Amino acid sequence: MSPFNCFWGSSPFTRQEIRQQRKSKQDKRPLRGELLKLVLHESPFFPYHAPSSVFYFFFIMASTTKRADFEAIWPSLSQDILAHAKKYNLPANAVEWFQKSLDLNVPGGKLNRGLSCPDTGLALLKQPLSDEQFEHLSILGWLTELLQAFFLVSDDLMDSSITRRGQPCWYRQEGVGLIAINDAFMLESAIYMILKQRFRSHPSYIDIVELFHETTWQTELGQLCDLITAPEDNVNLDNFSMEKYMFIVTYKTAYYSFYLPVALALMYLQRATPENLKQAHDILIPLGQYFQIQDDYLDNFGDPAFIGKIGTDIQDNKCSWLINQAIPLCSAEQRQVLDENYGRKNSEQEAKVKKVFEELQLEKLYKEYEEKVVGELRTKIAAVDESSGLQKEVFEAFLAKIYKRTK
Amino acid sequence: MSPFNCFWGSSPFTRQEIRQQRKSKQDKRPLRGELLKLVLHESPFFPYHAPSSVFYFFFIMASTTKRADFEAIWPSLSQDILAHAKKYNLPANAVEWFQKSLDLNVPGGKLNRGLSCPDTGLALLKQPLSDEQFEHLSILGWLTELLQAFFLVSDDLMDSSITRRGQPCWYRQEGVGLIAINDAFMLESAIYMILKQRFRSHPSYIDIVELFHETTWQTELGQLCDLITAPEDNVNLDNFSMEKYMFIVTYKTAYYSFYLPVALALMYLQRATPENLKQAHDILIPLGQYFQIQDDYLDNFGDPAFIGKIGTDIQDNKCSWLINQAIPLCSAEQRQVLDENYGRKNSEQEAKVKKVFEELQLEKLYKEYEEKVVGELRTKIAAVDESSGLQKEVFEAFLAKIYKRTK
Repeated sequence: MSPFNCFWGSSPFTRQEIRQQRKSKQDKRPLRGELLKLVLHESPFFPYHAPSSVFYFFFIMASTTKRADFEAIWPSLSQDILAHAKKYNLPANAVEWFQKSLDLNVPGGKLNRGLSCPDTGLALLKQPLSDEQFEHLSILGWLTELLQAFFLVSDDLMDSSITRRGQPCWYRQEGVGLIAINDAFMLESAIYMILKQRFRSHPSYIDIVELFHETTWQTELGQLCDLITAPEDNVNLDNFSMEKYMFIVTYKTAYYSFYLPVALALMYLQRATPENLKQAHDILIPLGQYFQIQDDYLDNFGDPAFIGKIGTDIQDNKCSWLINQAIPLCSAEQRQVLDENYGRKNSEQEAKVKKVFEELQLEKLYKEYEEKVVGELRTKIAAVDESSGLQKEVFEAFLAKIYKRTK
Repeated sequence: MSPFNCFWGSSPFTRQEIRQQRKSKQDKRPLRGELLKLVLHESPFFPYHAPSSVFYFFFIMASTTKRADFEAIWPSLSQDILAHAKKYNLPANAVEWFQKSLDLNVPGGKLNRGLSCPDTGLALLKQPLSDEQFEHLSILGWLTELLQAFFLVSDDLMDSSITRRGQPCWYRQEGVGLIAINDAFMLESAIYMILKQRFRSHPSYIDIVELFHETTWQTELGQLCDLITAPEDNVNLDNFSMEKYMFIVTYKTAYYSFYLPVALALMYLQRATPENLKQAHDILIPLGQYFQIQDDYLDNFGDPAFIGKIGTDIQDNKCSWLINQAIPLCSAEQRQVLDENYGRKNSEQEAKVKKVFEELQLEKLYKEYEEKVVGELRTKIAAVDESSGLQKEVFEAFLAKIYKRTK
């Protein structure tokens, strides 16, 4: 079990089961002993050296959302989306189609982005969420998953990807093809329908709507830059640059994966101020960059047994951190090897590129980068101003999940 | 010149030129004589029998927006959209790409939907718009054109269309291909960016944002139903029904083309009430259905010399009004002809379908439908309650543009 997975909802009990346990004991106080037991039971990395105040244990518990609890919110949400389509008398075959698109494209992923919303809520409040808070923050989490589904369905089509989450990509399902474009649109539209239905009277409603708009726009800018910089059918390393790489990583991934769920939780809990949002932004964007750079590193240097897949960035002509590190460092001979072998669908040519990466000691370079960026992030987190409701724990939890992950 | 085109901005003078003419005469009053002259000069259908009050002439003038005035708003809007992308340091090649997408996909159409916003404003106020009102209503008009561009770019891809506005479709431009999907997204995102920039402090801001969301969603539902009902590669007339046809027409076209621009003008001018919006809806949706049914009729029975193109609905397996009229009327023999020849890329087979349409007297059926629906619309328009700021003229103008058009 990686620390990443360990962090995310690992107790065997669902929220409902815990409530049932409490109820059967006719005790309405939080069952601290049991919570502690759950934590100890589940957390192989439990910090025995940590101060043993009940509060601390409580926070450890409080800082993770059970995946099962979060997943339990989805069915009613998807029903609401479909009900809104049926309200317009959408013909039955189209309702069926849309239901299949929702079921196959939204749940079933790692759900890290979605879980970040209630998790951030827990870290902000430092106490368990009320049922309403949990439901609302989970809905906002599912909306980030809907946004991601909108991106993934269309990205897979644009990238001619073959599988997603171990299944054929949506556009490759029988009869779908280019209709997937409109299906992607509908996943996006569902976000605003649910926001209106559930949050119309929330004081931050318009801020939340605008946050989704801006995050969508930022991701699209990143995607545009990615698509025109690294076309699979036209390999030209002159297109690449570390500047473009950082733009793509920041806009295509960091905003929607890291900043969005935290900003949503801040807005929902009425703790969003321009200063708090800026502090969150200034930590979460470099954190998201680090996450993606680490992803690129693992694609080449990670252990496929841990990652669960074999890296394909070299063969896919990806504008990755490694190739952008290599380009300014390599000799003329090495450059020729890269030019002639990068982005070719061929494992022998791939091996030649990998050899240049080893010669250039990119693994060492990555580890130096990692230590440097993690040090900077720790400094920034330590300097977080908590006076208007932000909590360092929000960011500590993210960093702990990511630092030295192996998958 | 058709009444449709005649209606839309036909004066040779732009708004700025008229202002200049006034200024040079040091006369700040509206130049009624000149306005009348413009109307007389430009309007071959000018109603000489009409009451000759100055007000009436003025209204005739006021009820049309000059295309050139409307077009003059676009450059600054497109610059604002690009500036927002540059603010994020979007690399230069991506800025260039986006600019080309905006320039090729947004202006250049008939602009009827966009012009409807300031035109509705004129009809509501019954007097010329202030410069600010004109600018704002034109911006809202351009946002409807952006929405349409978002739909057209993606529809062309999904339908494998070849040309649009006499040019190769965007996805067929050099190097574009499936990147068009992300380009379509960006056209949609631009709507909300401009709304935030220009209308954030307007009292109806959130209503306008939600109207765009809902209209987008409705159009996507219509598009889904269209795509799965009439796939080009799988002809099966059993898929078709008048019910599905009416759903597709209503949701894919009527909402965004007819209801949206009028509702935007009502909201912008603070005349939107639930009652006014409902009255507008209950006239504009049947009007939009009529417009599309007429389009289907003209595709087969219209004069290509007027329409400017040769109809392709039969060869394209379109779920059109004509085939949906034919199916329940035809004999078993005629049905066999339709089954064997509809949706085939072949002009001989197309001719066999056309013959069945003639045998079934669909032209006569259409004309009966037209008279009936126009009668109903006139009754509804006459019953419009103008007490809270709505004006019958809004709808009269639309109907006049559409009734018995030949292109």
